[in-house]
Amino acid sequence: MMKKNLLINEIINKIKKVTGNSKASLHEPVFWGKEKEYLCKCIDSSYVAVGDFVELFENKVKKYTNSNYVIATNSGTSALHISYLVAGVKQNDEVLIPTLNFVASSNAALYLDAIPHFVDVEEKTLGLDPEKLYNYLCKISLKKGKNFLNKKTKRRIKAIVPTHTFGHAADINGILKVSKIFNLNLIEDASESIGSFYKNKHLGTFGKFGVLSFNGNKTITTGAGGALLLQNKSDYIKAKKLINVSKLPHNWELIYDGLGYNYKMSNLQAALGCAQFQNLEKIISKKHKLLNTYIKAFKKNPYAKIFENKYQKRPNYWLQTLVLNNNILNIKNTLLSKANSKNIMLRPVWKLMHKLPHLYKYPKMDLSTSSKLEKKLINLPSSIYI
Amino acid sequence: MMKKNLLINEIINKIKKVTGNSKASLHEPVFWGKEKEYLCKCIDSSYVAVGDFVELFENKVKKYTNSNYVIATNSGTSALHISYLVAGVKQNDEVLIPTLNFVASSNAALYLDAIPHFVDVEEKTLGLDPEKLYNYLCKISLKKGKNFLNKKTKRRIKAIVPTHTFGHAADINGILKVSKIFNLNLIEDASESIGSFYKNKHLGTFGKFGVLSFNGNKTITTGAGGALLLQNKSDYIKAKKLINVSKLPHNWELIYDGLGYNYKMSNLQAALGCAQFQNLEKIISKKHKLLNTYIKAFKKNPYAKIFENKYQKRPNYWLQTLVLNNNILNIKNTLLSKANSKNIMLRPVWKLMHKLPHLYKYPKMDLSTSSKLEKKLINLPSSIYI
Repeated sequence: MMKKNLLINEIINKIKKVTGNSKASLHEPVFWGKEKEYLCKCIDSSYVAVGDFVELFENKVKKYTNSNYVIATNSGTSALHISYLVAGVKQNDEVLIPTLNFVASSNAALYLDAIPHFVDVEEKTLGLDPEKLYNYLCKISLKKGKNFLNKKTKRRIKAIVPTHTFGHAADINGILKVSKIFNLNLIEDASESIGSFYKNKHLGTFGKFGVLSFNGNKTITTGAGGALLLQNKSDYIKAKKLINVSKLPHNWELIYDGLGYNYKMSNLQAALGCAQFQNLEKIISKKHKLLNTYIKAFKKNPYAKIFENKYQKRPNYWLQTLVLNNNILNIKNTLLSKANSKNIMLRPVWKLMHKLPHLYKYPKMDLSTSSKLEKKLINLPSSIYI
Repeated sequence: MMKKNLLINEIINKIKKVTGNSKASLHEPVFWGKEKEYLCKCIDSSYVAVGDFVELFENKVKKYTNSNYVIATNSGTSALHISYLVAGVKQNDEVLIPTLNFVASSNAALYLDAIPHFVDVEEKTLGLDPEKLYNYLCKISLKKGKNFLNKKTKRRIKAIVPTHTFGHAADINGILKVSKIFNLNLIEDASESIGSFYKNKHLGTFGKFGVLSFNGNKTITTGAGGALLLQNKSDYIKAKKLINVSKLPHNWELIYDGLGYNYKMSNLQAALGCAQFQNLEKIISKKHKLLNTYIKAFKKNPYAKIFENKYQKRPNYWLQTLVLNNNILNIKNTLLSKANSKNIMLRPVWKLMHKLPHLYKYPKMDLSTSSKLEKKLINLPSSIYI
């Protein structure tokens, strides 16, 4: 094996071959469309909180993803929280969540006093491993009426929340099958997946619920924001009311007939989102070009490869990902530190959720693949200005 | 008493003397400043999620209100929720809340599995009645260690959340005294009170915590948004972390070391807020002029008067308020319906919280003044374009 420092320099040089010498961002939003025009139009209308851009944005998301129903929210976290509520996740219910994900999917369970139950992912998709989960659930669960209980904790297992990591589809058909067998509500965390399709179907539209994020670090953005995709009208009506403080519709009376949340996307942010849709396809095509440049730069080497999702039609390649080989895992932290100090924005994957102080006490299956991937994955500068 | 229909027409005509014949809005935001310029600057910077406008906005709020610390949030509700958390409100703690308020102050308690305990208001301020509360707490509470328990429920009474209704100061000095006697965390719901001062001190800066709202219906707006005002640095540090998903500060690592929330104000919305501050004083001066026009129109009549806050220096008069005399309370609903059908936006006060389906089961004191005011108060068109 090469000396550690030499190896790190070689990897940094390969990245720089792609990014050039200037600052290389992990991701940058792009504003090539009518962003300013729509924002000014929003101001001129005087409707900056509620207003027509919200419905327009929801319709754009609906059309693009081919969802039955769409609700714009003020964050992806809010959309997750509301999807759990509408899915009927109650206090002490268990929610199956891959440990390799942004912490919001677990936090949203805790908001409801529900229990995250951590499950493993597979290497080829970076997403939830349906076969491993099936075998696990056969062992640890027990059918009672329509529900499946965790034998050990006696708690109901109510929902499954697979992530489409970095915009790559998990094995969603396999996951769908498992969710049906064990009567689990399927909520897709497609926060990173706007523009990602699995066999011509947009991610987030396979489950009963799908969650998108339009945070500033995503492929397209509303500043802060998210969206909830829904299959059923009755769920849509419930969710729509919950994000609007459970207000009863009335021309002037102010009556709120249940616990509710202030989770609406503002008209201002929706205006930005409407303009952003104009360039989504162009951005994704640039992300695919960037992928190919990275693949070329890292071709034929003994220490790392670029993650490719070969069987999915079509990932958005939101963030490019380097997978370190097993024999060089010890360089990861130094590589991250050195590259970041040179303004090359490398990022490790999230610290696995089951290791976080507020989450380590919750149930989990064997998480060896996630633990392996945590050591191997590094996100590369993925700005389309590269 | 005049015939009901004649009386309603007379009141509507008095209002129309002020508003003219065109559509009269309850409130409209105004965009006289550099709103478009700042929004375009925000787009040009490419920082629409996090960015410099947030700190700039927080500093503007800080300077204007003379707060020690300010945190911009994505809504007033979020700021309330975080203030309860930082104040140490726990599951089953009771939180004293005037029943006459927007439902967010109770919902935020329920988010934490805490218990809203409804208290009464007084007619002269429309805010929490400290004397009545003092007498009530002497009767129903019991000192245990540093805390006071509700004798009946044995639960700790942890916080008090007075509202400054429509921008009018509650008797905040009286409330402060009661909060000290009973060791209650004082959280001012000043959501409607940007620009309102009580004896030269901005509302929201008397308590340990104060909450502002910048929703689109408020005196100035960020589209959706709020702010948390804090007195102590340690509270500020805790709250700042909680609104940012409890993320540990680090250049590239993604570690979240506790339950957290996605409650940050976006840079885009902060950019709008920065521009809005430019015209705050002008807006308030127009609101005061409107007050005087209404007072003149309703001078000397036997059935209603305009609410004035005579002892406070200086309310923002966000919404003008008509107070019906006791002998004509039966006209309220017809008046509301008729006026709204003529595009004169009258609004009743919120349905009292202790009557809402998800809140009626919680503890309450005698709420007779609130019940009386619910029947008497009507908000009048308060747009400064009138």
